[in-house]
Amino acid sequence: MRIQVDQSSLSNHINIVQKGISTRTTLQILDGILLETVNGRLKLTATDLEIRIETYLDCDIIEEGAIVVNSRIFGDIIKKLPNSSINIKVKDNSINITCESSEFNILGSSPYEYPELPTIINQNSFNIPKDLFKSAIRQTVFATTQDETRPILTGVLLEISNGIGSFVALDGYRLALRSIPVALKEDIKIVIPGRVLGELNKILDDEEDLTITTAPGHVIFDMGDTVVSSRLLEGQFLNYKDIIRKEHKTNIKVNRKEFQDSLERASLLAKEEKANLVKLNIANNQIIIKSNSEIGNVNEEVPSKQEGEDINIAFNSKYVIDGIKAIDSEEIELYFMGSLNPCIINPVEDKSYTYLVLPVRLAQEDY
Amino acid sequence: MRIQVDQSSLSNHINIVQKGISTRTTLQILDGILLETVNGRLKLTATDLEIRIETYLDCDIIEEGAIVVNSRIFGDIIKKLPNSSINIKVKDNSINITCESSEFNILGSSPYEYPELPTIINQNSFNIPKDLFKSAIRQTVFATTQDETRPILTGVLLEISNGIGSFVALDGYRLALRSIPVALKEDIKIVIPGRVLGELNKILDDEEDLTITTAPGHVIFDMGDTVVSSRLLEGQFLNYKDIIRKEHKTNIKVNRKEFQDSLERASLLAKEEKANLVKLNIANNQIIIKSNSEIGNVNEEVPSKQEGEDINIAFNSKYVIDGIKAIDSEEIELYFMGSLNPCIINPVEDKSYTYLVLPVRLAQEDY
Repeated sequence: MRIQVDQSSLSNHINIVQKGISTRTTLQILDGILLETVNGRLKLTATDLEIRIETYLDCDIIEEGAIVVNSRIFGDIIKKLPNSSINIKVKDNSINITCESSEFNILGSSPYEYPELPTIINQNSFNIPKDLFKSAIRQTVFATTQDETRPILTGVLLEISNGIGSFVALDGYRLALRSIPVALKEDIKIVIPGRVLGELNKILDDEEDLTITTAPGHVIFDMGDTVVSSRLLEGQFLNYKDIIRKEHKTNIKVNRKEFQDSLERASLLAKEEKANLVKLNIANNQIIIKSNSEIGNVNEEVPSKQEGEDINIAFNSKYVIDGIKAIDSEEIELYFMGSLNPCIINPVEDKSYTYLVLPVRLAQEDY
Repeated sequence: MRIQVDQSSLSNHINIVQKGISTRTTLQILDGILLETVNGRLKLTATDLEIRIETYLDCDIIEEGAIVVNSRIFGDIIKKLPNSSINIKVKDNSINITCESSEFNILGSSPYEYPELPTIINQNSFNIPKDLFKSAIRQTVFATTQDETRPILTGVLLEISNGIGSFVALDGYRLALRSIPVALKEDIKIVIPGRVLGELNKILDDEEDLTITTAPGHVIFDMGDTVVSSRLLEGQFLNYKDIIRKEHKTNIKVNRKEFQDSLERASLLAKEEKANLVKLNIANNQIIIKSNSEIGNVNEEVPSKQEGEDINIAFNSKYVIDGIKAIDSEEIELYFMGSLNPCIINPVEDKSYTYLVLPVRLAQEDY
């Protein structure tokens, strides 16, 4: 293999595939990036066997070939080289990199040792507008669990039915649901690893088109020059529709930022020892937020527009704040049904996003 | 104590004194900030018994008083309050903070428990232009040792003699020396803790005047609203003048950035296992930098203007790069005397800064 390639372009594409490399791998070959000349371009591949990222860039090919080279070392070298033309020569399992007055010789591995992409039988393909897809990831992926003992909940459910795509994440304490229109007639129900969506969100820029293809056990995100494929999570996802209550006894509207700021201040005293416990008293068109710890107490008042019963309810403020932060609208709406049932949060007059959070159960005299 | 104070001003001043609080303190009172009304203003004090920071800000005083309040909690609360007027009331050892619709009650400690400033008998006072002082700190403090078993070398020597102030730091591997003009007739020789200078550099902004006062065992940096005092380090500082060689056998001029970039690239392969070992071959108006490890090798060429003998010499690249980074000029000058003596680095035609670095001793066949 002998190629000539632009430094900044190569560096950018290395950045992209490096998101597919796990820091926890025990298989040495997976620390590497596969470099190959394919169809007149340079192809870079990285995988941790769950996610696989392939990206193509332009280069001058003098001689075809391939090699696997350590991702961190190769990335550091290319990043530090001057913004100029880089010559790459591969002979046996060694790579020679020259650029202006710098020359590196690095040992690599055989491309034949690199894991191949499993054969995937395409099933359904559809396009999703990039900005909608990115906001759907941002508004749900934080609500997945980090608890590996419940693997299905480390992923985001994507359910497509009747032209509506629903992204759902839940972890036992809260649930986030975002719906967007999808032009697909078939029904789909897949669970995509949260980590893959997080990395995808970093790679996706606003210029490219996004085509999603599903296949048994796999999903493929095609952005043109870059293709991300991922295993799907297997198992039964909770029936989220049963969780979202339709009836409520209390309904308040509140300014999002004011409410968030007050909750954040109230959390300052409850941080460690009190598991972020904050108590809300909802009455008389205002929310009184209280929190206390050994060192002191706090009292916050936020004006609201209330319909229905007064209520005392307590939360882990982190879970409430996470959901509020995912909403962009100026005003939000909160629905309650007593102090034991979940609180449901929407942007005002916008049902495309729903966030549900469980209260903390307190004895009535503790409010 | 009852005062009214502007949120952003209070938050800025808390930020300043927090630099005096050690994360490693075992004395609970030292986690606190002392708040006092003094001469019609609010005074904040923090100390770790080595450094002491006092800062004054304007406020409306309704009733005089004082309290000590936990630095982290008080700082977090004030930072999160809206940019508005804050009311502070102190009763016994409790502080009540209100701002718009927020109210906090926090337990504090008695101001009488707070350590007092030791009585300091002023000796000499002088002014140093702020920008020169800041650059002198930046160019030397990184060369102090982190090794607590040699406490005197954790500080920067400030020696004033004949109207020249010399800042010197050394750690056994390298030495940094910066000279600036100082309008003081007396001679001074003090060693200031490196940590204090580092924090001072963050606090110093370009608008204020800086007056330095020395006293037995202490130094005081007066910036008007903010006063930083520090214990001096005791012990004998090495006679740095003996270390800086006047005679050389090789002298090269090189572009600073090109040399730094090449050294950084050469270090990529030598990072962990090889203690950043890079080998320099200086001959024929160029520097060839080589480095290798199990995974490969690198060869860098940097053009230079050479006078004197050719030389092979090896370094821990980190120490060389640290010194080069501290220099602002486009070209630098390096002086050598064989491969066993230190290399001396200056900005070209500027003797106000000198950096000296010891080579790594290699057998001649290892170059």
